[in-house]
This record gives sequence, structure tokens and C-alpha cells, in this order.
Amino acid sequence: MIKIVAKNMLKEGHKEKFIKLAEELIEKSRQEAGCISYGLFEDINDDSILTFIEEWEDKKAIEKHNNTEHFKRIIPLLAELRVDKESNLYKEI
Amino acid sequence: MIKIVAKNMLKEGHKEKFIKLAEELIEKSRQEAGCISYGLFEDINDDSILTFIEEWEDKKAIEKHNNTEHFKRIIPLLAELRVDKESNLYKEI
Repeated sequence: MIKIVAKNMLKEGHKEKFIKLAEELIEKSRQEAGCISYGLFEDINDDSILTFIEEWEDKKAIEKHNNTEHFKRIIPLLAELRVDKESNLYKEI
Repeated sequence: MIKIVAKNMLKEGHKEKFIKLAEELIEKSRQEAGCISYGLFEDINDDSILTFIEEWEDKKAIEKHNNTEHFKRIIPLLAELRVDKESNLYKEI
């Protein structure tokens, strides 16, 4: 299992639009083979930080995900709404 | 439910010691009321990044956790083994 934590620091006033776009990405990603979980989380101390926390069976499932139509269409649109991003892929110890 | 992502950037050569200390913290934390999950994860692209990813029922469970003997003893010891830390508390959207 691989956990992805993809933290987005949003531009001011873009939170609703980001969430709207993310909803479609979440819904379609959850249907993909190899997707264990996929959610969007808001930092309880700073609502300009929205983070995808995802669990995938393996690297192959992630590579397939990164090549889906919805990923390739929505990710660039999300990128326009943030000032910075930090992404880590994790394996459990 | 609150998810905590606590990212630790380790000093060189301190990974084994960090993992050893973390094992006790993980084992005892998992037994606490309100702890849904508690794990240590290594960044698959940078093994100097070790991150606790935790799930707690609510803020009250986290406050109790932060006051446990094992938390108060082990967290300062972990702090000596890292150069930096980043911690976010999240609620699902």
C-alpha cells in the first residue's frame, strides 16, 4: 500500500472552486481499480490548506491513475488555484 | 474524525533510533481510547522523511493523548533526532 499526502496551499478566495473541481476528481478516482481511499481534508488551523490523502494498492495503480482522463484534465485546473504544493508518497514502516 | 500528518525531517544517521522510539509511541497510542489509527510512514523518494499519520475520534482524544506519559516522554526524544517538523491537523471535507 502507498499513501499519498498532497498538500495544496490555496490562493485567496479560490477554496470553493478548488473543492468543486476536487469533488469530481475524488468521485472518479475512488472508482479506479487499486484505489483504497481518496479524500480531501482541510487543515483545522488554516483553511487555505487543502490536502488530498490517498491510499493506493501499489505504484502501478498510481501510474494508471496519473494517466486517467479525469486526472490529466482536473489536476492542471487545480494547480491554477494554488500558490504552492507539497506532495509525499509513503510506505508504512 | 481528525487526521494528523506529522512530518519529520531527520538528522543524518538517526533513522534507526527514531524508528525504535516511534515503535513504543505507536504501540501505546494505538491502545488509547479515541485512537482510530496511528502509523509511521517513510517517504518512498526520501528516506530521511518519516511521517506519523494518525486518526483520532475528536479533539478531546488528541488532548488526552498529548497528556499521556508516553507522549510527554517520547516526543522530546524524537525532536532531538530531527532537523525540522511540519504538522497538520485535518478534518475531512
